[in-house]
Amino acid sequence: MHSTIAIDAMGGDFGAQVTVPACLDCLSDNPELTLILVGDTAILEPYLGEKVSAWQNRLILQHASQQVEMHESPSKALKNKKDSSMRVAINLVHEGKADACVSAGNTGALMATARFVLKTIPGIDRPGIISILPSVFGHTHVLDLGANVDCTAEHLFQFAVMGNELVKAVENIPNPSVGLLNIGEEEVKGNEQVKTAAKLLESSSLNYIGFVEGNSLNAGNIKVDLVVCDGFVGNVALKSIEGAAKMIGTLLKESFSKNLLTKLAGLAAYPVLKSFKDRIDPRLYNGASFLGLKGLVIKSHGGADALAFKTAIKLAELEIKQDVIKKISEQVEKSLALSKSA
Amino acid sequence: MHSTIAIDAMGGDFGAQVTVPACLDCLSDNPELTLILVGDTAILEPYLGEKVSAWQNRLILQHASQQVEMHESPSKALKNKKDSSMRVAINLVHEGKADACVSAGNTGALMATARFVLKTIPGIDRPGIISILPSVFGHTHVLDLGANVDCTAEHLFQFAVMGNELVKAVENIPNPSVGLLNIGEEEVKGNEQVKTAAKLLESSSLNYIGFVEGNSLNAGNIKVDLVVCDGFVGNVALKSIEGAAKMIGTLLKESFSKNLLTKLAGLAAYPVLKSFKDRIDPRLYNGASFLGLKGLVIKSHGGADALAFKTAIKLAELEIKQDVIKKISEQVEKSLALSKSA
Repeated sequence: MHSTIAIDAMGGDFGAQVTVPACLDCLSDNPELTLILVGDTAILEPYLGEKVSAWQNRLILQHASQQVEMHESPSKALKNKKDSSMRVAINLVHEGKADACVSAGNTGALMATARFVLKTIPGIDRPGIISILPSVFGHTHVLDLGANVDCTAEHLFQFAVMGNELVKAVENIPNPSVGLLNIGEEEVKGNEQVKTAAKLLESSSLNYIGFVEGNSLNAGNIKVDLVVCDGFVGNVALKSIEGAAKMIGTLLKESFSKNLLTKLAGLAAYPVLKSFKDRIDPRLYNGASFLGLKGLVIKSHGGADALAFKTAIKLAELEIKQDVIKKISEQVEKSLALSKSA
Repeated sequence: MHSTIAIDAMGGDFGAQVTVPACLDCLSDNPELTLILVGDTAILEPYLGEKVSAWQNRLILQHASQQVEMHESPSKALKNKKDSSMRVAINLVHEGKADACVSAGNTGALMATARFVLKTIPGIDRPGIISILPSVFGHTHVLDLGANVDCTAEHLFQFAVMGNELVKAVENIPNPSVGLLNIGEEEVKGNEQVKTAAKLLESSSLNYIGFVEGNSLNAGNIKVDLVVCDGFVGNVALKSIEGAAKMIGTLLKESFSKNLLTKLAGLAAYPVLKSFKDRIDPRLYNGASFLGLKGLVIKSHGGADALAFKTAIKLAELEIKQDVIKKISEQVEKSLALSKSA
C-alpha cells in the first residue's frame, strides 16, 4: 500500500536541518512512501543536495512562503499565516493529496489549524492528543496530553472510545485495557468529572479496568494499555515524568563523575548504561496523534532531532496503514447510535 | 527547647513494628524530645522490651482501644473510631499535651479527623498537604498533594501563602521562589483557576516567579522552592514521578542482570549505584505536613519502614522548633487584613 505524507518541513526548533534528513531516511526505508516537503523551497533545497533526483517522484517539494513561530498564538497563526508550511501541509490532507501530515511546530497553532481546516468527526466535541510513555510492561498510551483543560465526563468518555480504536489498530490487540487516571483506586476518590466518566465507561463495551494512579503510567501493578485523563492532568504527568527521568539521568552521571574510581566504574558499566539509556530513549517515543479530526495529524516534539522526527513519520505511516481515522470515525458513529438508542 | 510529639503508633501498613523502633531511635538522637506512643498498649509493650525505663519520662504510653483501617472511609472513621490511636493522638495536640502528631495511617481519615478536632486557621477554607520532592537543585516543596480536588483560584492562593511560610521556616530562607503549576509557561495557557490564581500571586508580596511545568518539580531550568497546584494535579504528578523512578530502577536492574558480563559490570559499579540510590532514597523524603490547621499534623507514607517513619518524626521536630503553625497563622491573618483593606 502506497502512502503519502505531507511534512511541515519548517516546523520545530531546528526546521529543515532536522526534517529533511529524517525524510530522506524514511524514503530510503520504505519504497511505498511519498513525502511532500512543505516549506520555503529556497531554504529546503540546500539540505536536499543531489539526493532529490534519486527519489524520483517520491519526494515532492511544495513551496509555502510563511512559517508559524514556535511561540506564536494559535489565533494569530490561524489568521495571519495562511501560506505557512504548517497550514499548507494540513491543507494537503484536507484536499486528499496526502494521507497524513507531520509537524514539529507549535502545538497550539497546529491543533487550532488542524481543527479549522479538517474539522472534527461528527459526535466529537474536542480533539485529544495521544502518545505513548515507556513502562515496565513496554509502553502505555495516554490521552489527553494537553489539548483540553477542564474536560467534562463526556469528553473523557469520547477520548476513551477514540483512544481504544487507535490502540487496537496500532498495537494489533483486540481488547485493550482502559484505565481512568485518578488520585486513588477507590470509588469515593476523585473529582466529579472522573467519577461520572467511570460510570459511562463501566456501562460501555470497552475493557475498562477502573481507576489507575499516576504510577500506573510507567510502573503499575498491572499492565494498562490506555490511560484516559483531562489534558491539564495528562500534560503535567507527562512533563513530571520527563523531569524525573532527566533528574535521575543527571544524578547518575554526577555519581559516576565524582572521582577517578567512580569514573573507572563508569567505564566498566558503560555498555550496560548505554543499553539501558537506549531503552528509555525519548526519541523512540516521539510522535503524538491528534484524535477526533477528519484527517491524520502527527505532532513531533519541537526539539526533535532527525531520529526523533523519523519516529514521528513512522508513526504516521503505521496509522495510515491501519486506517486509524476510518476506524475511529466508524466507532464514534456506532457509540453515538448506541447512546441515542439507549 | 523541649518538644512533645504524639505518635499514632498503630497507623500504617506495619503499625508498631515500624513506629516503635523509629520512636526509640528519635529519642536516642534528641534528648530534648518526648514521645507519646498512642495505641493498644498490649500490642505496643512487647516492641518496647526493656527500653522503656531507659527513657524515663520521655517515652509515654497512652492507651487507645481502636485503630483506623487503611481503607476505612474518612466519615466512618470519624463517626465510629473515637478511641482510635489516630484520633487520640490528634486530641493530644488539640489539648495542648503534644506539640504535633505523626501518623502513617489512612490519609483521608487523618485529614478528616484533624480538621474536625483541630479546626482550620481563620481565613483558610481548606487545609492542604505539602511535601518535598528531590530535584537537581536539592528539593522542591509541593502543595497540594491530594487533599483537595477542584480548587478555586483563592484556594491556590491560600496554599501559596501557607506554603511560603513553611518553606521560609524549614529552609531558613527569607524569600522562597513560588511557581504555579501549569501546562505551559505562557500566560495564555491553562485553566481559569490557574490564570486567576496567577493574578492574585502577581499582586501579592510573595516572590512569585510565574507558571512552571511538570518537569520543574525535579529538573527545571531554574530552582523553584515552592510549587503550588490543585490536589488532583499534585497527586498525579507525585505518583507519576514515583512510577517513573520505579520504572527506571527496574530497567536499570534488568540491564545489569542480563548476563555474566553485565553482572560483573554491575559489581564494579555497585558502590556508585548505591550512593546514587541513597541520594534519591524516598525514605529520606518521607513526611507530608497538613497546612491550614490549628495544630501540627505530619502524615508519613503508609508503607514507611522505620527509617522513613523516623524522617517524618524529624520533620515534626523541625516544624515545632520553627514554630510553623504560629508563623502561618500570623501570615494568613496579615494577608486577609491586606485583602480586606485593598
